[in-house]
Amino acid sequence: MRCLRCERGCGVTERLYLYDTTLRDGQQTQGVQFSTPEKRVIAAALDELGVDYIEGGWPGANPTDSEFFEARPDLRATFTAFGMTKRAGRSAGNDEVLAAVMNAGTRAVCLVGKTHDFHVTTALGITLEENLENIRASVAHMVAQGREALFDAEHFFDGYRASPGYALSCCKAAYEAGARWVVLCDTNGGTLPAEVGRIVSEVIAAGIPGERLGIHCHDDTGNAVACSLAAVDAGARQIQGTLNGLGERCGNANLTSLIPTLLLKEPYASAYETGVTREGLTGLVRLSRKLDDILNRVPLRSAPYVGASAFAHKAGLHASAILKDPTTYEHIAPEWVGNTRLIPMSNQAGQSNLRARLQAAGIEVAAGDPRLAQILDEVKLREDQGYAYDGAQASFDLLAREQLGLLPRFFEIKRYRVTVERRKNRYDQMVSVSEAVVVVKIGDTKTLSVSESVDESGTDRGPVNALSKALAKDLGPYQASIDDMKLVDFRVRITQGGTEAVTRVIIDSEDGKGQRWSTVGVSPNIVDASFTALLDAIRWKLLRDGVEPQM
Amino acid sequence: MRCLRCERGCGVTERLYLYDTTLRDGQQTQGVQFSTPEKRVIAAALDELGVDYIEGGWPGANPTDSEFFEARPDLRATFTAFGMTKRAGRSAGNDEVLAAVMNAGTRAVCLVGKTHDFHVTTALGITLEENLENIRASVAHMVAQGREALFDAEHFFDGYRASPGYALSCCKAAYEAGARWVVLCDTNGGTLPAEVGRIVSEVIAAGIPGERLGIHCHDDTGNAVACSLAAVDAGARQIQGTLNGLGERCGNANLTSLIPTLLLKEPYASAYETGVTREGLTGLVRLSRKLDDILNRVPLRSAPYVGASAFAHKAGLHASAILKDPTTYEHIAPEWVGNTRLIPMSNQAGQSNLRARLQAAGIEVAAGDPRLAQILDEVKLREDQGYAYDGAQASFDLLAREQLGLLPRFFEIKRYRVTVERRKNRYDQMVSVSEAVVVVKIGDTKTLSVSESVDESGTDRGPVNALSKALAKDLGPYQASIDDMKLVDFRVRITQGGTEAVTRVIIDSEDGKGQRWSTVGVSPNIVDASFTALLDAIRWKLLRDGVEPQM
Repeated sequence: MRCLRCERGCGVTERLYLYDTTLRDGQQTQGVQFSTPEKRVIAAALDELGVDYIEGGWPGANPTDSEFFEARPDLRATFTAFGMTKRAGRSAGNDEVLAAVMNAGTRAVCLVGKTHDFHVTTALGITLEENLENIRASVAHMVAQGREALFDAEHFFDGYRASPGYALSCCKAAYEAGARWVVLCDTNGGTLPAEVGRIVSEVIAAGIPGERLGIHCHDDTGNAVACSLAAVDAGARQIQGTLNGLGERCGNANLTSLIPTLLLKEPYASAYETGVTREGLTGLVRLSRKLDDILNRVPLRSAPYVGASAFAHKAGLHASAILKDPTTYEHIAPEWVGNTRLIPMSNQAGQSNLRARLQAAGIEVAAGDPRLAQILDEVKLREDQGYAYDGAQASFDLLAREQLGLLPRFFEIKRYRVTVERRKNRYDQMVSVSEAVVVVKIGDTKTLSVSESVDESGTDRGPVNALSKALAKDLGPYQASIDDMKLVDFRVRITQGGTEAVTRVIIDSEDGKGQRWSTVGVSPNIVDASFTALLDAIRWKLLRDGVEPQM
Repeated sequence: MRCLRCERGCGVTERLYLYDTTLRDGQQTQGVQFSTPEKRVIAAALDELGVDYIEGGWPGANPTDSEFFEARPDLRATFTAFGMTKRAGRSAGNDEVLAAVMNAGTRAVCLVGKTHDFHVTTALGITLEENLENIRASVAHMVAQGREALFDAEHFFDGYRASPGYALSCCKAAYEAGARWVVLCDTNGGTLPAEVGRIVSEVIAAGIPGERLGIHCHDDTGNAVACSLAAVDAGARQIQGTLNGLGERCGNANLTSLIPTLLLKEPYASAYETGVTREGLTGLVRLSRKLDDILNRVPLRSAPYVGASAFAHKAGLHASAILKDPTTYEHIAPEWVGNTRLIPMSNQAGQSNLRARLQAAGIEVAAGDPRLAQILDEVKLREDQGYAYDGAQASFDLLAREQLGLLPRFFEIKRYRVTVERRKNRYDQMVSVSEAVVVVKIGDTKTLSVSESVDESGTDRGPVNALSKALAKDLGPYQASIDDMKLVDFRVRITQGGTEAVTRVIIDSEDGKGQRWSTVGVSPNIVDASFTALLDAIRWKLLRDGVEPQM
């Protein structure tokens, strides 16, 4: 550890502050609308992670935000209300929009204000001096009421390019009025990292210390993370961002990417302390997935650090080197962020990929074993039919075990039938209903199960849903193991166009322990492809649970 | 325009080269496996965009890549084969892996080789001098055969950190042997932008000119775009990347983000010329979506420049400012990259778009007609349910005509039933069969039609196939018009993850005149979604043919 200020190795690290705005700017994402209970769950998770500030929303702007602030969540982090500087022509104490924000009673308040002269005159239609006074008076008002005051300098970088003197005077007005933080915002997201770094340096040279500067970036050029780092390199000491990079347009700086970089990579790891510890960091993948879960979004596989593919090694040469030493193709150890290594199977992969994958599934096969080539041939054959195993590890495990003679036979499907019917109901409305019958034989017992697909709301969820229910309805001696299974995602791809279309279905399942696995089925018949994937999901679960076969 | 070398404003811009590796490194994305026809389509689209190099794959590494190279696509760009430097203990001319790459006969060849001493000794298990000789001899071999030689310096940044002297000597060996480009690869994706910039400067200072240096970054910290820009800032003149940021693990540097930045933003726009023109840039959104379409991936809404949300203004304050002047909250004009502005708050902007679309379908509606707002509301409502009309113009025409009272009623579907059954046949094999019954009323005539899905080869093509046949089997007075119709493509997308999954089906139909049209259906029930799209396809055909309604 070294001190950045004296560079003499005095051992003092600087504090870097993390400000989360998932609940405010993150809510500007198209299609995102948090409920109050969801906001509570996310705030608690952020607090557990260890961010310094949690911005909860704009009290008074909408009923959800107001309700959330009324409950005053119990947090270790500084709970912060967002609003805007007072309007011209009234005092800070008499602005009812500002009053609603102050009345939320949070320890810190962050007010956004204009710093780009063009916006002051065009969007607000007030004089430049009136705007300065709005900033000054609003910050002074927060300070007078004993709050920690933050000023979000809107459009600061565009404003600085257009009129550096005016943009700076806005920041200075806030700083001199007592703002703890002046946050430089690249509101439109168009500024590139090198320019962010240069401008932050110039702001510090102009008299606002880096210890009082924050950075707020958007990802409109794909550089929000780099711009935030450039600002820290130049001296800023607070970073604003969101989980999974939620936010207006292309989103905000992604804290899920920034936090591991700050904790694990130089020069940041040695130079700074944050509220997030190395131990807290191991919960990052869980936190990222939890947010996607709440939003019912499919997690981005390629997300830095936390994506399911972030430590997936598909190239054959990479996989063989990983077996010798994981650092050959990994920049950090996946477990540091709570992620896991993945050696997906595909026809690109060689035998070493295969051995690594088998090893991970608990199957040891010696290098050069002829059965390795046999498994690869089978994978290739199936992939030519339309199968894809790199997104369906569980089906791959089953296939490999089958080739190795290690797959027990749990049950036999004698037949199934699915019917989809659309007709008028007694209220003369067209409705559809799907019904499935599955006939299973376990040992000497034959069981017929029937289910339909209509859910509690009366919606027909289709033939695959009916089939899935019928299949899991009565598996006799295995029922205890599959009772906590549920189908959590379903993906379909047509692998050949036209009338010869073949359908590939990938199903994600989950059990009560939070274990998740993916299986694949392929057929020209979409229902049959789904059935194959469903069967694999059940067989893998029975195998994983070590259930004794009853055949 | 200014010259970066003399800084005297001599008006000379430098050439910056774009190297696309979507078809090679992009194929390392988990779940991505291009077919040969798909590779051809993507290469042609990249060529139209104007990239300088198109890396097609690794000839000899797998059948798909070999087949693609055999066809020798006709491209303006430099078509490039990828491979690795020769192995130790044999000459470049006697290495059969290298021979397969050279035999593809491409104008340029890119060979990857080790530059990190740890990898040379650990992964390859050869001496450092042997590795240098492999690089030297391989590059010389390419040059001797008259090819443009590229050397991908694998793990260069990690290698340079560990042993700068050795990493540099590898690059120099390639450069001195005649490599047109020495490409510095951050293979593990862990290097941050500031360090990339510093190291590239040091490489240039050590004697390899920037005009001969390329950069190849991965997105493992979310900085691949910024690292590529930092390398250009330091003097590198070739950027390697992929469309939509496909690639191993977290993906490669995203060319879909980089290209607009290089063309539209300073200091790049004035300093460099690329093969992509401002006019070509307007096709970027279309290209990005085409790739997602081929991969059947849901386009990332928040993607910089090309995402559907990239110019969506959700915040009320933003939307009202945008109406006064779009530059208030947009860093570039969306149309420059072929994107469109989205203002959920107001349908003002939508009406002129809508009129243009209706005009294209031959429907004239005056500006200000209240029915325009009514159509937009209906489109919005349906899009909330999961409909997407961008790729289904025929369904959009039908919807608009319905709202305008211009859609005749051709027939009424009373009910349908589809059955999928899987059971043993008389040869004790499991086979599936699908059967559909459709009941249609035209005027006073009710017709029952039944079809099954088994084709001439005995393959069950599934419930949608059976339904499509039954529906088109007997439409009485309309039969002549629909007899030459066939279903030519079928795409399925799950629009919401999880158990609430809703299915969107898009069907392409074609008639005897070669006319092609697309229709869409949405439902939690995949069969019903398909049925809706099939119905639209028939109705549109009858409308287009001017068939007289018999109801």
